[in-house]
Amino acid sequence: MLRRSCRWVFVPAVFSCLFLAVPASSQPDKTDPLPSWNDGAAKKAILDFVRATTDKASPQYVPPEQRIATFDQDGTLWVEHPIYTQVLYCLDRVPAVVKEKPELKDREPFKTVLSGNREAIAKLSMKELEEILAATLTGMSVDEFQAEVKKWLATAKHPRYQRLYTELTYQPMLEVLKFFRANGYKTYIVTGGGQDFVRVYAEQVYGIPPEQVVGTMGGTKYGYGKDGKPFLTKEPKLLLNDNDAGKPEGIHLMIGRRPYAAFGNSPGDQQMLEYTTAGDGARLGMLVLHDDAKREYAYGPAQGLPDTKIGTFTQALYDEAKKRGWVVISMKEDWKRLFPFDK
Amino acid sequence: MLRRSCRWVFVPAVFSCLFLAVPASSQPDKTDPLPSWNDGAAKKAILDFVRATTDKASPQYVPPEQRIATFDQDGTLWVEHPIYTQVLYCLDRVPAVVKEKPELKDREPFKTVLSGNREAIAKLSMKELEEILAATLTGMSVDEFQAEVKKWLATAKHPRYQRLYTELTYQPMLEVLKFFRANGYKTYIVTGGGQDFVRVYAEQVYGIPPEQVVGTMGGTKYGYGKDGKPFLTKEPKLLLNDNDAGKPEGIHLMIGRRPYAAFGNSPGDQQMLEYTTAGDGARLGMLVLHDDAKREYAYGPAQGLPDTKIGTFTQALYDEAKKRGWVVISMKEDWKRLFPFDK
Repeated sequence: MLRRSCRWVFVPAVFSCLFLAVPASSQPDKTDPLPSWNDGAAKKAILDFVRATTDKASPQYVPPEQRIATFDQDGTLWVEHPIYTQVLYCLDRVPAVVKEKPELKDREPFKTVLSGNREAIAKLSMKELEEILAATLTGMSVDEFQAEVKKWLATAKHPRYQRLYTELTYQPMLEVLKFFRANGYKTYIVTGGGQDFVRVYAEQVYGIPPEQVVGTMGGTKYGYGKDGKPFLTKEPKLLLNDNDAGKPEGIHLMIGRRPYAAFGNSPGDQQMLEYTTAGDGARLGMLVLHDDAKREYAYGPAQGLPDTKIGTFTQALYDEAKKRGWVVISMKEDWKRLFPFDK
Repeated sequence: MLRRSCRWVFVPAVFSCLFLAVPASSQPDKTDPLPSWNDGAAKKAILDFVRATTDKASPQYVPPEQRIATFDQDGTLWVEHPIYTQVLYCLDRVPAVVKEKPELKDREPFKTVLSGNREAIAKLSMKELEEILAATLTGMSVDEFQAEVKKWLATAKHPRYQRLYTELTYQPMLEVLKFFRANGYKTYIVTGGGQDFVRVYAEQVYGIPPEQVVGTMGGTKYGYGKDGKPFLTKEPKLLLNDNDAGKPEGIHLMIGRRPYAAFGNSPGDQQMLEYTTAGDGARLGMLVLHDDAKREYAYGPAQGLPDTKIGTFTQALYDEAKKRGWVVISMKEDWKRLFPFDK
């Protein structure tokens, strides 16, 4: 299954003729803003889009204040397999939560998590996982939460790469973020992950400030400490689930404008890409396909890639991309260098 | 009552000694970033704060990415008397709503609004007003709503000044916004008004883009039109009431950082100022006191000013300001020029 998927080569139909007519230069270009991208339709789509929207002579020129580009995070900017980083954080936090609330020790799903039995943990239901997320992501002050996440990120390592999770960002996408910003675009993360979780490291890791992180949003409650100082407590109150239709809704709530470009990798990003590319003028929708088991992971089930429950890329999404002119990025074919630490 | 309030002169106690010791220059300065401000403690507090937080040699230096300043709108950036502009918009929209939904014609509170009886309208309960707000601010697409607000703002005039509402911004505050931005601050509106309402004109009027408007937030619902194009509908679902404790909560939700400076004018801003000034280093909290019946309005009831239901400045807030070192801006004493159209 993996083997077969690795042989699969993707050339987006809508751009292939353009590409054949005007082949991208094969000579290395020192001023190339996207050096970790192989020349091809995906790279060309990005370069063409930015040129079309920032060149004042272009009929598709976009004034600087309207230049908004949105990026899903898990599977688009960093590794999401074998499981979302934030879920691992929550599982790791369970012992500390139980220490503070010993009555949880013998209660499910906390008991299973404490057992360390990976097989049993993997079988937890969505409802049970949500209970763990609520217990580990809420009930503390915003400052305490930030400190805990920071501490965890400084030591927790990915089981395969044995690297910090914040090292497992995709170098080609870091280049896209920089390239967009260098061209006057405001870059936003629009993630199904917790808004406050991602804000802890987004500035350092992606150069994206907290105010440009749109994620699943929980309420906070204003109150006063014993010293009379005000602080905010994270509440188990969901304001917006930033997945699927929640992505354009979150974009409107937090940004109030329609993006010109959107990047994702799974059906949870489909509505964001629809909303983005339904606007007038030049619009860019791109989806990362994980078809590189050797350097990263291969999963679909689109195009015969192995099925997965984490960051699924369905065949329906793939077909939709072809229909709508969204460009699918083949990790295997389009990305020359994968991680910042790769040579 | 009005007369008495006009005689009242305010000198913030905490700054008066500083001011006496180092009197601000009385000669006009061509490079003065705040030319519509009279020299005094309020102006000095702004200049000193910006210098302290942007001079690299200052022990209170703040890195550019952390420079956040938040501004209440009604009564802080523009006129809020005799009644909030957005409420007038909603009342004016009632006939159009009733035209679309004729069944509302004989139902209260719509019947009263349609009667045009100002006395009766002024007596509507909060619950009735909320019903009108829900009927006129939700149920339409985001695009339709923006178009309607824009159209209304282009013609509706303030009963006293006979000017467009967007002309009734305070020139001294426009200068503060520009001065902060020129010094690397991101300026945000943090208003109890509807986030989507204020976004319609904030960029043109204040130079503040939609993504930097934090307001009372309603949910939207993603869907598809007959043409298959996606759009967002404004839902009657309150996500966050951006008043009182809702202001720091809204700031955390939308910005994710604690501001360094906050400007307001009523108890609904108190928690924002508390939250802002409780941070480390130099922090600035300022409150506009409307004590200028001649040029604008005079209302408190702080310091013996006439009482009001719109934008109340309570004595408790005034005392809190003195206690916490927040600077009260006397519209009458501190502002040389009030509106951009004043000479």
